[in-house]
Amino acid sequence: MLIPAFCSLIYKEDDIYSFLISGVITFIFGITGEQLTKSDADIDEFNRKDGFFIASFCWISAIAFGALPYLIYGVFSNPLDAFFESTAGFTTTGASVVENIEILPHGILFWRSFTQWLGGMGILILAIAILPKLSVGGMQLMNIEAPGPSAEKLTPRIAETAKHLWTIYLILSVLLFVILKFIGLPVFDSIIHVFSTVSIGGFSNQNASIGAYNSAAVEFTIVTFMFISGINYALLFWLSRGKFKKLLSNPEFKSYAFIIVICVTLVTIDLFTYNIAGLFDSFRYAAFNVTSISTTTGFISADYDTWPVFSRWLLIILMFVGGCSGSTAGSIKVMRIIILIKHAFREIKKNIYPNAVLPIRFGKNVLEDNTVSSIINFFLIYIFIFILSTIIITLDDVPIITAFTACAATIGNVGPGMELVGPTEHYGALSNLSKTVLSFLMIIGRLELFAILVIFTPSFWKN
Amino acid sequence: MLIPAFCSLIYKEDDIYSFLISGVITFIFGITGEQLTKSDADIDEFNRKDGFFIASFCWISAIAFGALPYLIYGVFSNPLDAFFESTAGFTTTGASVVENIEILPHGILFWRSFTQWLGGMGILILAIAILPKLSVGGMQLMNIEAPGPSAEKLTPRIAETAKHLWTIYLILSVLLFVILKFIGLPVFDSIIHVFSTVSIGGFSNQNASIGAYNSAAVEFTIVTFMFISGINYALLFWLSRGKFKKLLSNPEFKSYAFIIVICVTLVTIDLFTYNIAGLFDSFRYAAFNVTSISTTTGFISADYDTWPVFSRWLLIILMFVGGCSGSTAGSIKVMRIIILIKHAFREIKKNIYPNAVLPIRFGKNVLEDNTVSSIINFFLIYIFIFILSTIIITLDDVPIITAFTACAATIGNVGPGMELVGPTEHYGALSNLSKTVLSFLMIIGRLELFAILVIFTPSFWKN
Repeated sequence: MLIPAFCSLIYKEDDIYSFLISGVITFIFGITGEQLTKSDADIDEFNRKDGFFIASFCWISAIAFGALPYLIYGVFSNPLDAFFESTAGFTTTGASVVENIEILPHGILFWRSFTQWLGGMGILILAIAILPKLSVGGMQLMNIEAPGPSAEKLTPRIAETAKHLWTIYLILSVLLFVILKFIGLPVFDSIIHVFSTVSIGGFSNQNASIGAYNSAAVEFTIVTFMFISGINYALLFWLSRGKFKKLLSNPEFKSYAFIIVICVTLVTIDLFTYNIAGLFDSFRYAAFNVTSISTTTGFISADYDTWPVFSRWLLIILMFVGGCSGSTAGSIKVMRIIILIKHAFREIKKNIYPNAVLPIRFGKNVLEDNTVSSIINFFLIYIFIFILSTIIITLDDVPIITAFTACAATIGNVGPGMELVGPTEHYGALSNLSKTVLSFLMIIGRLELFAILVIFTPSFWKN
Repeated sequence: MLIPAFCSLIYKEDDIYSFLISGVITFIFGITGEQLTKSDADIDEFNRKDGFFIASFCWISAIAFGALPYLIYGVFSNPLDAFFESTAGFTTTGASVVENIEILPHGILFWRSFTQWLGGMGILILAIAILPKLSVGGMQLMNIEAPGPSAEKLTPRIAETAKHLWTIYLILSVLLFVILKFIGLPVFDSIIHVFSTVSIGGFSNQNASIGAYNSAAVEFTIVTFMFISGINYALLFWLSRGKFKKLLSNPEFKSYAFIIVICVTLVTIDLFTYNIAGLFDSFRYAAFNVTSISTTTGFISADYDTWPVFSRWLLIILMFVGGCSGSTAGSIKVMRIIILIKHAFREIKKNIYPNAVLPIRFGKNVLEDNTVSSIINFFLIYIFIFILSTIIITLDDVPIITAFTACAATIGNVGPGMELVGPTEHYGALSNLSKTVLSFLMIIGRLELFAILVIFTPSFWKN
C-alpha cells in the first residue's frame, strides 16, 4: 500500500491518506496474526487440509484488506462495492462497479491495477506449485505434462519455483511497458495496462478501456501480450531457455492457439459480412476482443454488444473456455476442455465395443482415471454452481443474458459480460445479493473451485 | 394412415386423399423392404450394432413416411417443413412450423397428434426394453432400480414387455379422454389432447394450445396426466398392481415430484409478486406451465415469455431436466441429474481424503463405475451437441435466447422455446439449415443420443 501512496504523492492527490491508513491497519492485523499463530511446525509438515485453508485464507484476507483504500477514500458509499472491486482486482477478473473510472485519483487507479498484478503473482504459485500437489480439478496433470518448473521436478521448493515464475512475469511486464511507452502511451497509462495485461486482469484507467486510444499499434501490442500471458508459464520458462519445440509440441498450447485463430477468423468474417466495419477493422476488433475474452482478460476495444448474434454468442462460449492451465488466465481452461471432449467421444466408441480398453491420451501421456475423473467433476461443479448463481441473479429481474454473462464472466474471471453488465456498462446496478454471489464466484473461480469448496464441507472441520 | 383417413371421411374433408396416397406409398415401401431383407436369422441373434441400427432406422423411416401426408396435402411449400413437423410428432417434441394451426383440416390435425401417440409407444419400448440392454447413457440402471417390467426380470421377451407397457398407456389414454369429455371438451379436441398428453408430445389443435379453453378444470386435469405420464412406466406398472410403496420409495420419483413442487411454488410467488395475476391464477399458470415444460410436454396455458426473468430462466433450466427415465418424457432426465450432482459432491470430499472409497448410491443400490461413467458422458455429449447447435442457429441472427431455447427445447423434446420460438410463435421463420439441425436434435434427443451417434462413427461400419 506504500507503492500506490507513493503514486498519490507524485500526483499530489489526497487519496494518499487512504493508503497510509489502510497500510497501518493491515500492518497491525498482520503482525498480530503472526504473533498469535506462531508455531514450531515445519513448513513441510503441511497436509492437504492446511493447503486448502492457506490458499483460501490468503486470498480472502488479501481481498478484504485490499478493499480498505476504496472504503477509506470513499470511492463507494456501499462497503460491498469496495469488496467487489477488490475481489475483481486480486482475482484478476476485472469486473468493476465504478461508473466513471476517469474521475478517480491516480493512486486509486494505480491500486486497482496493482491488485491485479499482485493477484497474478499469487495465481502463478497457486496454479504451478500448490494446486498440482493437491490434485485439484486435474491440476496433477501439470506434473506430468508441463516439462517446466513444476514443484516435483525442476525446483523442489515453492520459493525456488516462485523465483523462476516471477522472473518471467517481471520480464513480460518490463517488455510490455517499454513497447507501450515507445508507441506513445503516457507513462501512467502504460503502467496501469502493464499490470492488467500480464495478470490477465482487465482493469483500465479509461472508461472505454483500450478502445479509448483508438490505436491499432496499442491494440495489437496488447493482443500479443494477452496471448503470451495465457500460455502455461512452465512452457514460457522453457521458451526463455530457447526450447521452442517444447512449446510447439504441447497439445494444450496448440489447441489454445487454434481456438483463438479460428474464432478471430469467424468473428472477422461475421463483422465484415454485417457491415460493422471494413475488412482490416473487422479483423482488428475481432483479434482484440476475441483474445481478450478468450484469455479471460476483459479489456474492450469495441462495443461487442452491438455485434451480430453469432459473434456475441461465440464470445459468451469463449468465456467458458479460457486460456492454458498454469497461466494467469481463468475459466475452465483449454486442457480440461480437450480432455472432456476426448472422454465424451471415447464413450461413443465404447457403446459399440463395451469391453474395449480405450485410454485417453494427452500429448504422449496416457491419463490416469483419477485425473480424468477430477477434470469431469471440475466441469460438473463449475456448471452446477454457474446455474445456481444465474437463478439468484435473475431475482434482480435483469435480462437473462445479463444474468447469464454476469455469472460466466465472474466465475471465469473474465470481467465484463453483456447487456446490463456489458462493455459499456458496469456491475454497480445489481443488488447486494447479486454482488455477493458474483464476488463469491470470482473467488471460487480463481481458486479452481475446490480450494474454497472443501472448506464449506463439514468433514473438512472434523478433528 | 387409414385412421386419419377415416377421420377425414367423418368430417368430409379433402385431406383424405393425402392419407390414402401416403398409405399406399408407405405400404409399397414396407412390403418391398420386407421382401428384400428376408433372413433366416433368429431375432435373438441380434447384437449391439443391430440394436442401434434398428432403433435409429425405425425412427427415421417412420418420420420420413410420416411427413408424406403433410407434403401431399400441401400444408407446407417447403419439404423440410413437412419433415420437421413429422419429426416433432414422432419424437413427441411438439415443436411446430405451422403458423395457423386452426385452418388445417381435421385429418391433418388428427395425424399430427396421432404421430405423437405412436411415437410415445415406441419410446416406451425403447426406454424400458431395448436401451437398458445396450447400456446406453446409464440406462442399464433401469435393470437394477426399476422393479417393474424390465426385460431382464419380469418379462423376458420384448413383445411381452410391450403388452404390459401399452396396457398402461391405453388405460391412461382412455381415462383422460373420459375426464376431458366429462368436463365439456368436444370429442375431437379431447382425442387430440389425449394423444399429445400421454405421449408427452404437446401438439394441440388450437393456436393458443390449452390456453384456448381458459378452463381451470381442463388445465388441472392435463397437469395431472402430464405428471403421471412423466413417471417411470415400470413404477406405474407396480402401481397398477396396488404397490404404492414402490412408487413412494423410488428416489427418482421423489426428486421428480420435489422439483415440480418447488418450481411451481417459486413461480407462483414470482408471478404473484410481479402482479402478473392473482394468487390462484398465479398458481394455476405456474402449475400448468412448469409441469408442461418439466415433463417436456410443451403445452401452453399462458404466454410465459412475458413473465418475470426469474420464472422464465427457471423454465429454461427445467428444459434440461425433464421427467423420469422409462417414461415418454425427454431431456436429460431426473435420474441422471441426481447422479451427476451426487458424483460432483463426492469429488469435493475426495479432495480432502484422496484415498477414501466413496460409493454413489441410488436408492438402496450402489452404482457401478461403468454406469456412472455412461451417465457423465451422456451429459457431456448432450451439452457439447447443444452448444455446437446453438452456434449454428445464431447464424440466422436470431436473439441469443431464441437460439438457446430452440436447441434446448428440441434436444430435450420439449417443443416451444422462448422469444422468436416462444409460446405465441413457431419454428417456421428459421433458415433451412437451422430446421435441419433442430430436426437432428429432436431425433438424437429422443434416442438418448447414443443410438444415433454410434451410427456416425467409422468403427460402427467396420465388418
